[in-house]
Amino acid sequence: MPKRATLKQVASQARVSYQTVSKVLHGKRQVSKETEARIWDAVRALGYYPDAKAQNLRTQCSRMIGYSWAPLPPDQSNPILDHFLQSMMHAAERAGYHLLPFAHQDNLYEIEPYRELIQTGHVDGFILSSIIYDDPRIAFLQEQNFPFVAFGRSDPNCGFPYVDVDGNAGMRLVTRHLLSRGHRKIAALAWSETSRVGQDRLQGYLDTLEQAGIPPNAAWIARGEGNFAFGRQATLNWLDCPTPERPTAIVALDDLTAIGALQAARERGVRAGVDVAITGFDDTPMAPYVTPPLTSVRQPIGEIGRRVVDMLIGILEGTPSIDSHVLLEPELVIRDSS
Amino acid sequence: MPKRATLKQVASQARVSYQTVSKVLHGKRQVSKETEARIWDAVRALGYYPDAKAQNLRTQCSRMIGYSWAPLPPDQSNPILDHFLQSMMHAAERAGYHLLPFAHQDNLYEIEPYRELIQTGHVDGFILSSIIYDDPRIAFLQEQNFPFVAFGRSDPNCGFPYVDVDGNAGMRLVTRHLLSRGHRKIAALAWSETSRVGQDRLQGYLDTLEQAGIPPNAAWIARGEGNFAFGRQATLNWLDCPTPERPTAIVALDDLTAIGALQAARERGVRAGVDVAITGFDDTPMAPYVTPPLTSVRQPIGEIGRRVVDMLIGILEGTPSIDSHVLLEPELVIRDSS
Repeated sequence: MPKRATLKQVASQARVSYQTVSKVLHGKRQVSKETEARIWDAVRALGYYPDAKAQNLRTQCSRMIGYSWAPLPPDQSNPILDHFLQSMMHAAERAGYHLLPFAHQDNLYEIEPYRELIQTGHVDGFILSSIIYDDPRIAFLQEQNFPFVAFGRSDPNCGFPYVDVDGNAGMRLVTRHLLSRGHRKIAALAWSETSRVGQDRLQGYLDTLEQAGIPPNAAWIARGEGNFAFGRQATLNWLDCPTPERPTAIVALDDLTAIGALQAARERGVRAGVDVAITGFDDTPMAPYVTPPLTSVRQPIGEIGRRVVDMLIGILEGTPSIDSHVLLEPELVIRDSS
Repeated sequence: MPKRATLKQVASQARVSYQTVSKVLHGKRQVSKETEARIWDAVRALGYYPDAKAQNLRTQCSRMIGYSWAPLPPDQSNPILDHFLQSMMHAAERAGYHLLPFAHQDNLYEIEPYRELIQTGHVDGFILSSIIYDDPRIAFLQEQNFPFVAFGRSDPNCGFPYVDVDGNAGMRLVTRHLLSRGHRKIAALAWSETSRVGQDRLQGYLDTLEQAGIPPNAAWIARGEGNFAFGRQATLNWLDCPTPERPTAIVALDDLTAIGALQAARERGVRAGVDVAITGFDDTPMAPYVTPPLTSVRQPIGEIGRRVVDMLIGILEGTPSIDSHVLLEPELVIRDSS
């Protein structure tokens, strides 16, 4: 490894004391123009760079932002991770920070990794995602009074800074789209009632039906884990009903569940996009490539990543943004499945 | 933010000097049993943790491993990123290191971000991926004599430590599988000749055909960017040939190209998996969900992530592994498309 130039070498080459170099470099001491020029010449000639470790120790900042996420099983991939991390890294680096990703052992909500990174001074703040009701990470960080910003909310009036996507608005877009195509029998593939994100999205569907004067039908709301098997099975159940009880459109709260619904339609010889409309949510990368291509709702991931980091850095640097609760609008992407 | 306990407070509570505490904590000084017990009691009572920044400055190590990757366009997702990062983070943290992801401006191969992280002392070493022929990052790090390990190779005898997947072996598995199903007219959707990974994979196909006594047919090797449009168009061209010139099986070097081929078959009313076999590579998460589910080749991503980090930490800590060129075997995943 090449030797780094030291402050001592700069001082020696510029024929001044170590302390003088240090003070000039930190803009703290006036010396003669000639001396200052000699010091900067030596800095350039030796290729001296201040050491981040020394600077961080002096300022008691790590200029690191911690972030952890729940890995998906090996047969799934996280469709937003790449863009979320890249947008956070760019925003952090623009402000002289870096992102510090870290792992957890059992689940994303254990607080030990957070406690350790705080106690060892590794990070100045955290970005959280996959927020749940009564999120233990949030309770811990609030108790520690340690800075963080969340991608997501836990309740409508939560007292912490967040950026979120309006999932309710996304499902309103989808449901209105199906109403505009003449559908009146619209079923929903929903998640468990304990999912805040799921309840928020489902409410957008319920509100839109209500506004259109269509009473919700409990038989047309299925709940389960947002995955392929659930979407397939619940859709088979509906397709096997006599015609009056069979929905003509199915909204899913995520793409994988919708892809399970597409498979069920194929198994029953029902043409998705013709005989039954099916929609997803998240606009995952596979949405355009399934058969037929899937109508979905796209979240502005790049903007979310940029805004959570900018908001956190504002807090860290004592210039918090006025609006610490930001809700971004998603976009409807219409394809052949509806 | 809660105040961190300082070494001074520990010293005051234990009624010893600051220097004594520091030396005892670093195991450098023998004091009486009573004094030592008093110091450790004070450490526990105050919840004192050594500051990572101070430790790193003392040891001149950052205990950070830099990693950068090329983001995909918004309509694609990186199927291995989640598992690769998670496995690297776990391996790093087990050894007391962290991963430092960083961004680049124009392309992955610019060396400025690497130079800056070295000069500012932010990282102790790098992990590189997406290795190309004459990779400028490798030339730079070798010239700087700065530690790194690559996921991937640049040439058969490259003089740097790497972990790679044997893409040649992967294509041999696929091609043998098709031969065993009776196919003799096997076409390949290949990448540009400038791609080392692409050439390595294609060679596995060519070698297997040769071993089976089947001369390669130039008309059945199409080259293009590994994407949906290329796979679809090249396959349409083949399917529109008179029967003797039409392949009965098509291997692609990546899944997205294979999914384009599935689409072409659908457009021509040819049943994939029945009338024509189609295979991919990488076993991306969408492979099981396309129609029909796609036969593909799976890379052991978790093992790659663990091994690149373990190899780098071995180098950093002066205990390099004996084998610095590791080639891992991929696995064939057979589904309905073949």
